[in-house]
Amino acid sequence: MAGTFIVFEGGDAVGKSTQATMLADWLTGQGHRVVLTFEPGDTRAGARMRQIVLDPATGDLSPRAEALLYAADKAQHVEEVILPALQRGDVVVCDRFVDSMLAYQGAGRVLDVDRVESIARWATADLLPDLTVVLDLDPSAGVSEIVDKDRLESAGTDFHARARSSFLALAARDPDYYLVLPAREDREVIAAAVRERVAPLLSAGSGTLSL
Amino acid sequence: MAGTFIVFEGGDAVGKSTQATMLADWLTGQGHRVVLTFEPGDTRAGARMRQIVLDPATGDLSPRAEALLYAADKAQHVEEVILPALQRGDVVVCDRFVDSMLAYQGAGRVLDVDRVESIARWATADLLPDLTVVLDLDPSAGVSEIVDKDRLESAGTDFHARARSSFLALAARDPDYYLVLPAREDREVIAAAVRERVAPLLSAGSGTLSL
Repeated sequence: MAGTFIVFEGGDAVGKSTQATMLADWLTGQGHRVVLTFEPGDTRAGARMRQIVLDPATGDLSPRAEALLYAADKAQHVEEVILPALQRGDVVVCDRFVDSMLAYQGAGRVLDVDRVESIARWATADLLPDLTVVLDLDPSAGVSEIVDKDRLESAGTDFHARARSSFLALAARDPDYYLVLPAREDREVIAAAVRERVAPLLSAGSGTLSL
Repeated sequence: MAGTFIVFEGGDAVGKSTQATMLADWLTGQGHRVVLTFEPGDTRAGARMRQIVLDPATGDLSPRAEALLYAADKAQHVEEVILPALQRGDVVVCDRFVDSMLAYQGAGRVLDVDRVESIARWATADLLPDLTVVLDLDPSAGVSEIVDKDRLESAGTDFHARARSSFLALAARDPDYYLVLPAREDREVIAAAVRERVAPLLSAGSGTLSL
């Protein structure tokens, strides 16, 4: 694949979208073509799936239905947005990817994690990020800062603690493809650490604008 | 499981909902508690998933995303509607179930059928019907009768021919749990054949109203 695929993971309100935007801005300034995107919901179909999952009016969504909806969103996102961009040689910066599904729908919801992973890998055509940045934060601190809690965010501290453990375990399993950073650190310090790790991944010439 | 689970399968416009309704009416007349339901879309969340799949405004939905959306609908339907009814001892009569997903999203869309089946079985917690009635019709005849074709129905005759072959192959694989009937037959003749096959499945006392 010609492009480079960078993912930000972590709990709610840890600064993923801020850091993703800062990285994308820096990459653009360096002359790279960048696609800044997120999951769930960054396709037309995916936005409607996201509404179903997050809307309290949906009522009790079965854990398997929720996991399958997230997988459907990923399948659409990979085929419609991520793969075409990588094939063009762009840098894709994505706020959440498969690990969020493993952390929230697998470990968080107490489904069979291996089955959830198998479904997520199938949904995403076995696409793996070149780097996943985990912004790590004690979940009780992260959630308490959010005033308007949606359905997932009100799922309780145990749920978020399991999700955090899952992110850290995934990073420990494959350290060459992960960078774990403390989310409480100054955002400029985090951004610099991310840039330092991302820079060597950008192959010369690929993902850059033709001048 | 105390109840009895009857499914109707087949192509579009072959009379599945008519036959499901006729069977449900007969069962009710016999004193059984009956839940008449359908897939996709017979839960609040599922109705919104169905809209995504069938609405032409969704645009090109990736085959994997479509399969996963159908699986999500099934997961919600089984947990919210079918399993509770069977646990109460009711007779559940359902218009489409897992076989439709295997026929349309597996064989029809040329995805890996084994993977699609594995996902569908996980979604439905390995619940199997006591009987699946396949209403069989040459697909070129069935589709041509529909004036307002939605996105799926306009997918072409080859697609529907593969789906038909899939329904027949599933029935041939497990004949004890299938009844294949020609959909062109008179509806009363079909209904009588269905009743004859269903009657012995209704265990005495279960699924009946307490008087």
